[in-house]
Amino acid sequence: MANAANDPQATDTNSQTAVVIAGLKERFGERCSTSMALREQHGHTTTWLKNQPPDSVVFAETTEEVAEVVRLCAAHKVPVIPFGTGSSLEGHVNAPLGGVSLDLSRMNRIMEVNPDDLDCRVEAGVTRKQLNSYIRDTGLFFPIDPGADASIGGMAATRASGTNAVRYGTMKDAVLGLTVVTADGTIIRTGGRAKKSSAGYDLTRLYVGSEGTLGVITELTLRLHGQPEAVSGGVCPFPDVNSACNAVITTIQMGMPVARIELLDSVQVRACNTYSKLELAETPTLFLEFHGSEAGVREQSEMFSAIAEENGGGPFQWATVAEERSKLWAARHDAYWAGKTLNPDAQIMVTDVCVPISRLAECVTRTAEDIRAEGFLAPIVGHVGDGNFHVQILVDLSDAEAVRKTEAFVERLALRAIDMGGTCTGEHGVGQGKQKYLRREHGDALDVMRAIKQALDPDNIMNPGKILPQS
Amino acid sequence: MANAANDPQATDTNSQTAVVIAGLKERFGERCSTSMALREQHGHTTTWLKNQPPDSVVFAETTEEVAEVVRLCAAHKVPVIPFGTGSSLEGHVNAPLGGVSLDLSRMNRIMEVNPDDLDCRVEAGVTRKQLNSYIRDTGLFFPIDPGADASIGGMAATRASGTNAVRYGTMKDAVLGLTVVTADGTIIRTGGRAKKSSAGYDLTRLYVGSEGTLGVITELTLRLHGQPEAVSGGVCPFPDVNSACNAVITTIQMGMPVARIELLDSVQVRACNTYSKLELAETPTLFLEFHGSEAGVREQSEMFSAIAEENGGGPFQWATVAEERSKLWAARHDAYWAGKTLNPDAQIMVTDVCVPISRLAECVTRTAEDIRAEGFLAPIVGHVGDGNFHVQILVDLSDAEAVRKTEAFVERLALRAIDMGGTCTGEHGVGQGKQKYLRREHGDALDVMRAIKQALDPDNIMNPGKILPQS
Repeated sequence: MANAANDPQATDTNSQTAVVIAGLKERFGERCSTSMALREQHGHTTTWLKNQPPDSVVFAETTEEVAEVVRLCAAHKVPVIPFGTGSSLEGHVNAPLGGVSLDLSRMNRIMEVNPDDLDCRVEAGVTRKQLNSYIRDTGLFFPIDPGADASIGGMAATRASGTNAVRYGTMKDAVLGLTVVTADGTIIRTGGRAKKSSAGYDLTRLYVGSEGTLGVITELTLRLHGQPEAVSGGVCPFPDVNSACNAVITTIQMGMPVARIELLDSVQVRACNTYSKLELAETPTLFLEFHGSEAGVREQSEMFSAIAEENGGGPFQWATVAEERSKLWAARHDAYWAGKTLNPDAQIMVTDVCVPISRLAECVTRTAEDIRAEGFLAPIVGHVGDGNFHVQILVDLSDAEAVRKTEAFVERLALRAIDMGGTCTGEHGVGQGKQKYLRREHGDALDVMRAIKQALDPDNIMNPGKILPQS
Repeated sequence: MANAANDPQATDTNSQTAVVIAGLKERFGERCSTSMALREQHGHTTTWLKNQPPDSVVFAETTEEVAEVVRLCAAHKVPVIPFGTGSSLEGHVNAPLGGVSLDLSRMNRIMEVNPDDLDCRVEAGVTRKQLNSYIRDTGLFFPIDPGADASIGGMAATRASGTNAVRYGTMKDAVLGLTVVTADGTIIRTGGRAKKSSAGYDLTRLYVGSEGTLGVITELTLRLHGQPEAVSGGVCPFPDVNSACNAVITTIQMGMPVARIELLDSVQVRACNTYSKLELAETPTLFLEFHGSEAGVREQSEMFSAIAEENGGGPFQWATVAEERSKLWAARHDAYWAGKTLNPDAQIMVTDVCVPISRLAECVTRTAEDIRAEGFLAPIVGHVGDGNFHVQILVDLSDAEAVRKTEAFVERLALRAIDMGGTCTGEHGVGQGKQKYLRREHGDALDVMRAIKQALDPDNIMNPGKILPQS
């Protein structure tokens, strides 16, 4: 039952929740569970935010079932928390007010793939790796790659991106249309299959990034891309973060269609050397990948070599063999685990911000100074072509003072990014962890967000306690 | 005064409007006008929709002045209709309920250009050509190119695009952030200068395409692009629309980063031959442009030649000389005027739809059959890489029966596109002309749009009578 005190309102909430759970058990049988293990697994489990389990978990198998659950919850004003794979980092799946976790993982059908239109339609529980395996033979791929093998629905809800975003965009660009169950249980479709439209408000992009607070995303029409004819890539060391960032700025300005351009600071390189058995110089390093024709990727590699050299970096070590390239990118994707090896006894507090690329070097450098001043062990890795970077602070979560210091550091970082014209989160989302920065970032625009929330979810049952701060 | 009958409510509306106009005259002096010529010029003037002039026109020069006007209008529940250059095609600037036309054309300052970040900030009245002239020396350009030299604010409000959209996207992709005056006169900022963010609802993309019905866009932060090192292009004839569309599908599937790929049907080619003194074969023809390195654009041209040949088209006539290429694209941009020469006594009714590219050949072919069956003179030209095409029907607007037949044709076209999974407008917007198709296109999602409108503009003063149909 909801985290209840002894006041009448909480008791009323509890009894409403009990009615809903009884109804769900009758309708869904074993697909509705109140086991504590399952409930805790459906609360937040990935970072330092505390686990707040829902009162029950329901496994929905169709959009119509999702609508049934929402209608029942709406009738009793009981919260609904959509759940994909639980890989979110800012507490999105927690249930601070109790309620029903709506697990969409069984909605994992790939409904259609249209190679001529470079699009597909999937249920929300399909994961990005599942989709890419399924479509591999069509010559197409889906480029959005957050670290985890997240569900596509969850990725849309948090406006996820990843290493390919510099070329292929984020979930806001990848989603053409949605099926959404609204707060009163109505099933709507937004967008469509046309590549563009000027026919009314862009509801698709309103729901993308709304973190389940305006409705439940149950199906998605996605834009796919042709697999490139050729791929090349490599690594390039720089004497400092500033020169690496300048090389990136020049690369982007020249309109080079770089597919991936990732920065690892020297601490992260050291971690990757150990974890992934690489032998990179322990200095700020760019990982790059180019997509195009054979001639095109060769040309891009050569141009980038020259740019790196002009900026005091290099040599660009071009990985021509696919296995060598795969090893490098596996190391990049394992950066989180590599970081953890720097202190196996510690836990990781991870955060992300995004700034205009002209401010990136300054933001990274000042953050690295902050890390040194605090004595943290905290590798930095970033999608530098977008101005987006992550800091993983290794911390002993049982040490309250260390946690407090880390939280203060995360706050300084978020405010630093906002003050540079950036954002408190580039791709992780707001959830519970970043709420307190939204007024600073958005000013009075936050009131417009509130008005939309109030209009589309008047009883505040859709993932309450997320995105919008209390006050 | 508002188009009033003799009922008390209309009289009350009139008196409220009179109070507002008196206040505006006192505050803005000669920058507030009620001259009939100016009012008519601020109603709809570009297509067959009837002119509905506002009660007065105010020329605002700053965001703060816009907020003052909106606050005054809000206090008296008098409509506010934002106005840029008046080049919209679906009646967006008409004043069916009277009110104040808020002319932003004097807000034409380019406030900052940041070459390192490939972005800039402009006032809403800046036009696209003005911006491109201003930034030419920075090596950057702004790619969105609707036919008219529209204001950037108006282009954002209608989610405009144009010939470059297949590569560079539409206004939804070009706008990073906005300054908006809301319906109660509050000035808010949406988005920011970071290239991506997951920090809350995507208000930027909600206002882009909202046609002034949720607030007045006064400033925009825009994404710019590096001018390509090399540009090449040319024309390629095909035996029929189907083979041309198949060539386009293959080109896109291969991931070729084509910058422009435009289809002209044989009627449009004939018109362009006459108007722009070309000597093209009068058959469905693709106009193409490639952006990239010297080697890259050569490679793209060669690849496209092979694709065209495989699909029964060609030869691809590659225009290597810049003047020759400029002449071709000038002809493409003059397609509207060229069409008019087919019957100098007629007026033009223009419409656009967008469908999944796999349905484009069928949609164009069936539309051409419809044109033939009706005996219309109506060239077709399309942004075929996006599945978006325009039909210009030459019609004598004084012939009521001809107008009725044309309106019926436009309706059949809109519904045909929607039934194919497309949209009733790819880039012109809804305005007044496309309202009646929104329920068919969006179903219950239309009610979500209404709820947002109601929440953000409860008194319905922001460009009333646009986008959302009455019933």
